[in-house]
Amino acid sequence: MEHFDLIVIGAGPGGYVAAERAGALGKKVLLIEKDQLGGVCTNWGCIPTKSLLNSAKLYKHALESEKMGVVAKAVTYDLPAAMAWKQETIETLRSGIAYLMKSNHVTVVMGEAAFVDAHHVQVGDSVYEGEHLIIATGSSPAVPPIPGHDLPHVLTSNEILSIGELPESLVVIGGGVIGIEFASYFSSVGVKVTVIEMMDEILPMMDGEFAKLVRREMKEVDFHLGCRVTAISADGVSYTDAKGNALQVAAAKVLLSVGRRPNVNGLDRLGMVITRSGIEVDDRLRTNIPNIHAIGDVNGKSLLAHSASRMAEVVISNLYGTQKMRMRYHAIPWAVYGMPEAAGCGLTEQEAKKQGREVLCATTQMRANGRFLAEHGKRAAGLCKVVVDAKTKALLGVHLLGPYSSEMIHGAAVMIESELRIQDVKEIVFPHPSVSEIIKDTLFAIDHTL
Amino acid sequence: MEHFDLIVIGAGPGGYVAAERAGALGKKVLLIEKDQLGGVCTNWGCIPTKSLLNSAKLYKHALESEKMGVVAKAVTYDLPAAMAWKQETIETLRSGIAYLMKSNHVTVVMGEAAFVDAHHVQVGDSVYEGEHLIIATGSSPAVPPIPGHDLPHVLTSNEILSIGELPESLVVIGGGVIGIEFASYFSSVGVKVTVIEMMDEILPMMDGEFAKLVRREMKEVDFHLGCRVTAISADGVSYTDAKGNALQVAAAKVLLSVGRRPNVNGLDRLGMVITRSGIEVDDRLRTNIPNIHAIGDVNGKSLLAHSASRMAEVVISNLYGTQKMRMRYHAIPWAVYGMPEAAGCGLTEQEAKKQGREVLCATTQMRANGRFLAEHGKRAAGLCKVVVDAKTKALLGVHLLGPYSSEMIHGAAVMIESELRIQDVKEIVFPHPSVSEIIKDTLFAIDHTL
Repeated sequence: MEHFDLIVIGAGPGGYVAAERAGALGKKVLLIEKDQLGGVCTNWGCIPTKSLLNSAKLYKHALESEKMGVVAKAVTYDLPAAMAWKQETIETLRSGIAYLMKSNHVTVVMGEAAFVDAHHVQVGDSVYEGEHLIIATGSSPAVPPIPGHDLPHVLTSNEILSIGELPESLVVIGGGVIGIEFASYFSSVGVKVTVIEMMDEILPMMDGEFAKLVRREMKEVDFHLGCRVTAISADGVSYTDAKGNALQVAAAKVLLSVGRRPNVNGLDRLGMVITRSGIEVDDRLRTNIPNIHAIGDVNGKSLLAHSASRMAEVVISNLYGTQKMRMRYHAIPWAVYGMPEAAGCGLTEQEAKKQGREVLCATTQMRANGRFLAEHGKRAAGLCKVVVDAKTKALLGVHLLGPYSSEMIHGAAVMIESELRIQDVKEIVFPHPSVSEIIKDTLFAIDHTL
Repeated sequence: MEHFDLIVIGAGPGGYVAAERAGALGKKVLLIEKDQLGGVCTNWGCIPTKSLLNSAKLYKHALESEKMGVVAKAVTYDLPAAMAWKQETIETLRSGIAYLMKSNHVTVVMGEAAFVDAHHVQVGDSVYEGEHLIIATGSSPAVPPIPGHDLPHVLTSNEILSIGELPESLVVIGGGVIGIEFASYFSSVGVKVTVIEMMDEILPMMDGEFAKLVRREMKEVDFHLGCRVTAISADGVSYTDAKGNALQVAAAKVLLSVGRRPNVNGLDRLGMVITRSGIEVDDRLRTNIPNIHAIGDVNGKSLLAHSASRMAEVVISNLYGTQKMRMRYHAIPWAVYGMPEAAGCGLTEQEAKKQGREVLCATTQMRANGRFLAEHGKRAAGLCKVVVDAKTKALLGVHLLGPYSSEMIHGAAVMIESELRIQDVKEIVFPHPSVSEIIKDTLFAIDHTL
């Protein structure tokens, strides 16, 4: 029986980063993956959706840039080509991860892990012993028991990524990030899309003002908010609206995007504390079993690829590093890569109020920004909102809606992590012309003193 | 004679920001502009070039996105439409500045300012008195005394922005930022472009490795480095190469982009100390005359729009604010908006070595980055390089070449201004998938400990 310093179960952005970092520090590491290196993120999540969304953006640009001097005739969208490009991207990244494991001397075993006890994991006929275990088994799309959920045209975010042709119509059940990104993608390439959401607004993590604008900007999509799906049939989706009216909408395909469930199968036998949202962990990602950590979606703390990677670093720093880091959640950025793009980091105004924190907020229109105007014109939608502590003037939240949001938001993460106050940000020089200047300008809108 | 707390001469990104900030603090401000609100930046610089470059990028995307599923036939570039869009952008921004001045109670006078003495400025028949003066008169394209420089097809960056049709060929004299952006624009929309540069490499502020890659990626452009232009004739440009050979290249149009000269006409009568690079100022932008400050291009310290705006804030903080700020130049980002895009902030490796600083550097390829790969593929060019102090591990420089560089670089400015060390940046969560992650990954390449 082979012994390892560390056994990592699951090779997503939590698991493979943990394995890489531990391997880089000279530890003997085993990484077990039952499906594909890269996990959901690389294979059925972040990466394939961003690849497709980028092609949809290019398609819209080719259709709509005549006003800027780009005239294109007979613009069509070639789904098989877009899917092939997406697939090549996935495969390149997967081999990149394989190479990373190899160069950090990580042993990779493909197969499903069964937990023998806190120190032993079985894959097929082999049992491996580990001093430490990291569970990074991720999550799977939730499939609610709606009548008809098992019909062949009802897909989750996994299956929809390998459809062979564009459906005539798509009903998206659930208006979270996954639902909205797919709604944006399919509507942009010409599919008639309807979103049915139980809550009063889409994108619950987003500032209310922003979510409303995202919805308004997705002009081709029909949104039914405050509605509950009652059944799916071969040709449509039945739902009741907020007033209790029974309604129906036609659907060639249905996407179920109502949330994700932690993959905790077989973990109960270890005596691990597991709740509905996942494995319980503390701020160093320790479970109740001394040598086992749980990172990523499976602990339910923050279902984001970069959160999983950060948790990996925190665990490795505590196990083998010098820093004894703790996981902090207050400055983790998120992004929605639809059209329009949006991103945020830190508190929203609504969250601050719920916490009883006294805050100052300002919102500015991106159309006042030179680069935004040069690239999108004065009728385009774009917003920046900042939330600062009323007393200390420390930056607590930055919210962006508009182009480049996902690439700008790391700057907000740096500012919030560094506990910068308005005055500190004012002393920083932002490049002109860039959309990023809007962050500084919005802070000046709260306090124009120098 | 009307008296003002502050008279600002020049309404570019230095002058109008100074006027706005002072006005916001309740001061009585006069802003004098001889041509157009917004100065070079809004009217003949940053903004129009970014508008045109964006249209060229969209044009290239429409031509080259078949591999991602976007098929467009008969793609053409409509210069008059692109120019009209650019013009609308300029006019919108100009009226934005006019509105900003009005809402901050700034008096705007259009006309050329003549300096009577340190407290009096004349425009036309009116003389205005100011307690303080800010000179923000900017710079103009240098026109070297090359034989033929005054021929009608020889243009500066001002005139080339209003040409009515694309020339068959363009020779760009000078491979600095302005020359390279125009070379990128015109070559992208189908013009045969040649760049003649006196130095051994283009883009002198850029890391050498990066400048070389920019050049290599501008595949359609002919570069002649280490060459000196000797004469311009009606149909071509004569130059001598590094070995002294006399050569010629055909040119339907010639762009002179060999630098900019400070606009100091008429300032000598005030007894101001003026050198070849501009008005001498200290780190609070004070000239040798107690009540006169000089900001922006005219002082020659940093010829960037955002530097000028920052200088404006520094001056206003010292005159009317609470902060007594000083101008710092070590974390001012720059960007080149060509294809490929590039940006940097802080020291290059070459500059660090010249200063005798011991530094650690790492360079990574963007093709290892998930989003970059999803949007550009594994054969696309992209780099990230970081420079850190060998002893303290403080971040000194970040250099980017690839998409979104100009929108990511403010994050580097925040990190450098906040004096973050490698370890601090490692604790920050970057969003996945985003190209911005490359900054953190490159820091890990220097030091992989946790």
